[in-house]
Amino acid sequence: MKKTLSAGVIRTDLPMADGRTIRYYDTHNQERSAVDQRPREDQPSIGELRLDPLLNEWVAMAAHRQGRVFLPPKELCPLCPTHDQLMSEIPDSDYDVVIFDNRSPSLRPPIGEWEMSETFAPGNLNIESPIVPSAGKCEVVCYTSDHDKSFYELSDSQVRTVMEAWRDRTRELSQEKYIAHIFPFENRGEEVGVTLNHPHGQIYAYSFVPPRAEKMLAVADAHKKRTGRVLMDDIVAREIRDEVRIVARNSEWISYVPYASRYPFEIHIAPLRPVADLAELDDRAADAYPSIAKETFKRLDGVFGIKMAYIAAWHQAPVRVGRDSLRLHLQICSVRRQPGKLKYLAGSESAMGAFIMDMKPEQSAQQLREVSL
Amino acid sequence: MKKTLSAGVIRTDLPMADGRTIRYYDTHNQERSAVDQRPREDQPSIGELRLDPLLNEWVAMAAHRQGRVFLPPKELCPLCPTHDQLMSEIPDSDYDVVIFDNRSPSLRPPIGEWEMSETFAPGNLNIESPIVPSAGKCEVVCYTSDHDKSFYELSDSQVRTVMEAWRDRTRELSQEKYIAHIFPFENRGEEVGVTLNHPHGQIYAYSFVPPRAEKMLAVADAHKKRTGRVLMDDIVAREIRDEVRIVARNSEWISYVPYASRYPFEIHIAPLRPVADLAELDDRAADAYPSIAKETFKRLDGVFGIKMAYIAAWHQAPVRVGRDSLRLHLQICSVRRQPGKLKYLAGSESAMGAFIMDMKPEQSAQQLREVSL
Repeated sequence: MKKTLSAGVIRTDLPMADGRTIRYYDTHNQERSAVDQRPREDQPSIGELRLDPLLNEWVAMAAHRQGRVFLPPKELCPLCPTHDQLMSEIPDSDYDVVIFDNRSPSLRPPIGEWEMSETFAPGNLNIESPIVPSAGKCEVVCYTSDHDKSFYELSDSQVRTVMEAWRDRTRELSQEKYIAHIFPFENRGEEVGVTLNHPHGQIYAYSFVPPRAEKMLAVADAHKKRTGRVLMDDIVAREIRDEVRIVARNSEWISYVPYASRYPFEIHIAPLRPVADLAELDDRAADAYPSIAKETFKRLDGVFGIKMAYIAAWHQAPVRVGRDSLRLHLQICSVRRQPGKLKYLAGSESAMGAFIMDMKPEQSAQQLREVSL
Repeated sequence: MKKTLSAGVIRTDLPMADGRTIRYYDTHNQERSAVDQRPREDQPSIGELRLDPLLNEWVAMAAHRQGRVFLPPKELCPLCPTHDQLMSEIPDSDYDVVIFDNRSPSLRPPIGEWEMSETFAPGNLNIESPIVPSAGKCEVVCYTSDHDKSFYELSDSQVRTVMEAWRDRTRELSQEKYIAHIFPFENRGEEVGVTLNHPHGQIYAYSFVPPRAEKMLAVADAHKKRTGRVLMDDIVAREIRDEVRIVARNSEWISYVPYASRYPFEIHIAPLRPVADLAELDDRAADAYPSIAKETFKRLDGVFGIKMAYIAAWHQAPVRVGRDSLRLHLQICSVRRQPGKLKYLAGSESAMGAFIMDMKPEQSAQQLREVSL
């Protein structure tokens, strides 16, 4: 299957040996036909969702994930193209950007007709709720075939292809009846538990609106009801007015350390013409993304002159609710507060959700701005 | 000042050189008069609370905390009694249990008359909310003068004294107008960011109800309204009925891996005769706590035969709300899933609040039960 997207990107889908799908996103109309030669392997069965009654929140149980590959050497990297020594996850001998179904998914497409369970409704707590299959989808997004590159070292065209792939996946996953929320993200660095060093991100598509998205939705809905305005628009306006926390901007995007950041280095990147999700982003905004993203991530690594561990998370409106009150933005959080020191989520943060910051947001914004590019 | 508490514990308060207070909790009526000989030092000024408008949650900014002592060698430990080589935080040359005001507090008592700010009300979001002083109180709880002991290696009488000190602090801090929620906890292990290895816990007393406590309150209130019952009572009843996740029990307490645990090893310890907080616990329950606590923590270290990193968090009802719907329990969370592997809170957990568990709760409960004591 071939499909033409924006910015000259062409998507080709191919089956993998165990029934999963790999999607190549190419800019030069490459022919993709390499066959996955690995032996067939049974896919793990679907896990379960259990309701934590104290918080009325779902926890996904994925016991089969314990055997995952852990920091393999470069020559055994499953995200590099297939080569003489290794049949990797990508059957072809090169690629631009690929997205394939995760081999050890925390969430899996349900079998048969999907019915939204009644227990998914927030507030409808039933502590004896039955175990629910952990429906959803987990995908791996390889940003480049080059094992040693960082995101900001990619060419503008390569980052644009990644953006096109995110938009495409958001559009397509939004069509699935069992998917309620789509979350593209990147974990970078062993300090945040990364098990593969190859530059890549992931997409989690949940069958429920996750707790933090649900809370953001409730807050934004209340704000809209009271003021008639969209919360995120007010927030971006305030950041522009305050100016002191801005890290970078261009014609379409702004990046800033938020007024009440929770991590030593937390940066948000938001489009200046707001949209609900990646699928709603137009080409003009998508085309301007590589420059702001590359500058922002480069400044982050520049602060201490080291590869910063971070979590980069795309916040989108859920698929079916809050489309008018929630707005797309990328949240980057780094736990590194000094070259040899991390911020840990200890008692106050993890048990109480009350964050303590050792550093003022204005101070980290200044450090980020002072990095020479 | 001397004060007699339960279980023969006597509290003596003394001033520290910089105006802070140290409280000795003794079982043998020791005379406490040692003077803090250290030079006077200015206390840091109060930090600020900023409202994160996306989530309507407070973040405490405590920029002065950057210079904290970081993993000093034993002979420089500030939590050991004062000795020839070092004037520590504890002026006396020995102690049973002490609680003193934190030298680098994230939260501090406000100056002058305290007015609950209007912006503290949940839902009353104002993104231009003024900066609020980070009022509250942070205290350090030294469990023993012995630098190398673990909590479960303490004598029953020593653990009982710690419990008495917790009850006493909860009672007293509850009287303060500026305190809304009291949170005694322990971080153990460098994996969770501990900067001092001496066996100790902390108390954070917040001037607001922290986000997770607020959510637990909303869920428990909704459950009570619908069913007339207290949520935590239903939860404990279910754990007793299911039986498979119970770790230990005695006449007054039960410890279990919760049905939807979020960490490889998560254990809750709850009193069988439920109460709102530590202050409401009666002597019979307090007397029975050492045996269940010591057994539970010993089992945790026994699983892999190593000192497990953990966060142990006392969940209490807030001081002025939810007294009839929330119940006291201790939540212990360990991030260690195998001897060489930690669980990290990565994208799904930290940005979406959606936890993925690699292990079934029944499996970790069994491992904990199988430890020979």
